[in-house]
Amino acid sequence: MTNDFLGDFEELSAFGATARGGVDREAGTAAHGDARAWFIRWLGDNGFRVERDGIGNIFGLLDLVDGAPYVLAGSHLDSQPMAGRFDGAYGVLAAAHAAKEVLGAVRRGELRPEVNLAVVDWFNEEGSRFKPSMLGSAVFCGMSELDTALSTSDRDGVSVASALDGTSGRGTLSGLPLAAYAEIHVEQGRRLEDADTAIGLVTHTWSAQKLEIVVRGDQAHSGASAIADRRDALLGAAMLVVAAREVAEGFGGDRVRTAVAEFTVLPNSPVTIAREVRMLVDVRSSERVVVEEAVAALRSRFDGIRDGASVDIEIERIVEWSSGPFVPEGVAIAEREAVLRGHAPLRVPTVAGHDATNLKERTPTVMLFVPSVAGLSHNEGELTRSGDMVAGLEVFTGVLGSLVRGELEGVADPHAKGARG
Amino acid sequence: MTNDFLGDFEELSAFGATARGGVDREAGTAAHGDARAWFIRWLGDNGFRVERDGIGNIFGLLDLVDGAPYVLAGSHLDSQPMAGRFDGAYGVLAAAHAAKEVLGAVRRGELRPEVNLAVVDWFNEEGSRFKPSMLGSAVFCGMSELDTALSTSDRDGVSVASALDGTSGRGTLSGLPLAAYAEIHVEQGRRLEDADTAIGLVTHTWSAQKLEIVVRGDQAHSGASAIADRRDALLGAAMLVVAAREVAEGFGGDRVRTAVAEFTVLPNSPVTIAREVRMLVDVRSSERVVVEEAVAALRSRFDGIRDGASVDIEIERIVEWSSGPFVPEGVAIAEREAVLRGHAPLRVPTVAGHDATNLKERTPTVMLFVPSVAGLSHNEGELTRSGDMVAGLEVFTGVLGSLVRGELEGVADPHAKGARG
Repeated sequence: MTNDFLGDFEELSAFGATARGGVDREAGTAAHGDARAWFIRWLGDNGFRVERDGIGNIFGLLDLVDGAPYVLAGSHLDSQPMAGRFDGAYGVLAAAHAAKEVLGAVRRGELRPEVNLAVVDWFNEEGSRFKPSMLGSAVFCGMSELDTALSTSDRDGVSVASALDGTSGRGTLSGLPLAAYAEIHVEQGRRLEDADTAIGLVTHTWSAQKLEIVVRGDQAHSGASAIADRRDALLGAAMLVVAAREVAEGFGGDRVRTAVAEFTVLPNSPVTIAREVRMLVDVRSSERVVVEEAVAALRSRFDGIRDGASVDIEIERIVEWSSGPFVPEGVAIAEREAVLRGHAPLRVPTVAGHDATNLKERTPTVMLFVPSVAGLSHNEGELTRSGDMVAGLEVFTGVLGSLVRGELEGVADPHAKGARG
Repeated sequence: MTNDFLGDFEELSAFGATARGGVDREAGTAAHGDARAWFIRWLGDNGFRVERDGIGNIFGLLDLVDGAPYVLAGSHLDSQPMAGRFDGAYGVLAAAHAAKEVLGAVRRGELRPEVNLAVVDWFNEEGSRFKPSMLGSAVFCGMSELDTALSTSDRDGVSVASALDGTSGRGTLSGLPLAAYAEIHVEQGRRLEDADTAIGLVTHTWSAQKLEIVVRGDQAHSGASAIADRRDALLGAAMLVVAAREVAEGFGGDRVRTAVAEFTVLPNSPVTIAREVRMLVDVRSSERVVVEEAVAALRSRFDGIRDGASVDIEIERIVEWSSGPFVPEGVAIAEREAVLRGHAPLRVPTVAGHDATNLKERTPTVMLFVPSVAGLSHNEGELTRSGDMVAGLEVFTGVLGSLVRGELEGVADPHAKGARG
C-alpha cells in the first residue's frame, strides 16, 4: 500500500507542477481538469463506480450493503495559485487508497460492512478563482444553491458552469445518503511539528469573520494634484491593512489572527490616485466572542482612517464561520486508531476552513491532520514528509474501517440537532 | 471660431465617453482609435496634409514656406482610465483650430510666415496602458528607441505595434525639422483658479523620481499560518504607502508630493498571504535636491518596514525627471499675447509631465495652461469651463501666429546648448 500510495502521489503531483515543487491548479483550469481525469481513471481501475453531481464533485462509490447509506471520505484536488502539492490532494488520494484497502478487507471477509463506502473530490475548495471557497461541498450539503454556484464567474467572466464543461464536466448524481464523513488534511500550521507527532485529531473549528470592505476615494493626478486635495483610496486601504495587523497584535498570544490577502486597486495606473480599493479582511479566533471583539476593534479605527486619508470606508458584506466541535465519538475513534499504531496524537483545532467544516453540519464527521513542515502552506515550499503521509494514511484506513463497521451509527445527525457549539 | 471649436470639442468628447461626463480612452483602444480617426478626417477637411510616423504620432502639416522648418503644436488624445475629457484632447483641438486660424491669416495676407506649421497628436502620453508615459513624443525626440517602444506590452501581452496596427496605424514620416513647439493643456492643479485667471504661463517643470519597488514576502495560509511565521508582502507594501505620505507631510507646505497609485498584489487570493507586491512610488518637488532628500527619507524607513513585516524591499529602477525651464523668450511671447487680450496671466510650474517636457529639450518650447476647476484631473469630473477654453484658444492662436512669424528664431536650440537648469 505504501509504495503504491507514494508512487500515485508523485503522479498526481505532476499536474500543474511548478518549478519549485508546488502546484498551480486552480479550480476548473486545464491542470485541475487533468488531475481530475487522472483520478477518475484511478477510481475506475480500482473498482469504484464513478459519478459526478451537478457542481462537478467527483464520487467513487463502493456498493457493499444494499440500500445502506454511505461513509464518505475525501478532500479536494484544486489548489491556490503557486501553492503546495499536499493541500487537499493528499486527502483525496489517502481516502481513495484507504477505501481500496477497506474494500480488500471486506472481500477477504476480514471486515463486515454495515454501510456503503465512497470517496469524493470536492470541486473548488480553495475559492481563489471562484468565490466562495468550499463551494462544491456547500452545494452538496444544501448550504449553497446549485444555480447560483454554476453562474459564479472568475475575474475574466468565465462561469463555473463553463469552466466545468471545458474540463472535468458535470453529472447527474443528486445527493447521497450519508452515514458519516471523514477527511485527512495537512495541518497548515505547526502545532503537530512542535509536538513531534504525526497525527492530529481535529476537535473543533475556529470562528472567523471575512469582511468585504470597499475604500472609496477620488481619482486625481498623482503629481499635479495637491496632497491636501486628494482622497486617496490606496492610502486609506493601506492604513486599514496596517490597522488589521495591529488589532491582532493587541490581543497578544496568538488569540486573534487577521490578514488581508485579496486587494484590488482601481484604476491601478501609475499617475492616477486610486478611486477605489476592494479588500477582504480575515479575522479569526478560537472563540466567536473574541472574533467579534477584534472586528469591533478594527471598526473603531475606521473614523481615524476616514479622516487621515479623506476616504469612505464601507463594509459591504460579512461572511461568518461559526466555531463548532467535531463529534467527540469520532475524535475517540481516531484517537484509538492512532494509539493502536503507536502514535501519541494531539488534539488540535482547525483554523483553516475545510470541506469537513461543511460536512460536519450534516453528518457525524471525523477529521485528521498530518504535519506541515514549518507550518508552511499555500506556498510551493509546503511539505509533508513521506513518513507522515504514510502514518496518516494508515490511521485514516483504520478510521474508515471503523466507520464502515458502523461505529458512528447511533451518533445523532448534527443537522437534526440544530446548530452545534 | 468659438462655436466651431466648442462644437468640435463636444464631438471629440463622445469617443470613449463615460456616464459621468468623462472619457475612458487609453492608448491604442478602440475608443482612442475612433477619436484619432475623427481627428484625421478633421485635418483632411481643413486643408492639412496628414502623416504618421513609426510610433503612430499623427501630424497635420501646413506647408507655407518651401524648405523651412516647422512650428509644431499639439498634445494627446489618449486618456487615463475613467478620466477627464479635457486632459490632452483640449490641447490637440486647440492647436488644430489655432493653426487653421493662422492659415486663414496667411491666406488673407495678414500674416507673413517665416516657417511652416504643423499640429500633432502624440501617441500614448498617459502611460497607463503602455509604460512609460509620453512615449510617442520621446520616440520623436530620439529619447526612446522606436523598436523598444513598439514591442512594449500591456498587462494582457498586447504590444504597442499590434495595438497601433489594429486602430490608428503607423506611418513612415521620419523626423520633422522644428523651429519651435507649443502646447496648451489643462492645469490639473488649482493655482490658476485660486488666482482667478484663465491663462497660465508655464515657466519650468518640477523634478520627479519614480521608484519601481518590489516588496517580497512568502505565500502562506491567511488563517492557518501563525502571525509570527508570516512574511506578508502586502503588509510591508501598505506600510510603505503610509510612509511615503508621511515623508511628504514631513516637508510641509506643499514642498514635496508623494503618491503610490500603481500597486499589484500577487497572488491576490482571499486566503493566501501575498508573496509579492509591485508598486510605483512617485516623488516630486520643484527642486531636484528636495526630491533627493525625500527619497532618502523614504529609504531610511525601509529597515523598519523590513523588520515590521519580515519582508524584503528592493528598488528595481528609478526613472528621474529633471526640473528645467521653458525658454524665457517663449514665456514672454505668451505673456504679451495674453495681456493683449485682457488677461492677467500667472507664471506657474508644471508638476505633471507633458509632451512639451520632452520637446523643450529639442526645440524652443512654449507651454500654456488653462484652469481645472478645483484642480481635479484624471477624474471623470475634470472640468475646464468653456469660457476658459475659448480664452486659452485665443491666446494660443496669438502665440502660434507669433511663432510662425519667426519670433523665436535666433533662440538657441536647447539641445545644442546641452542640458538646461
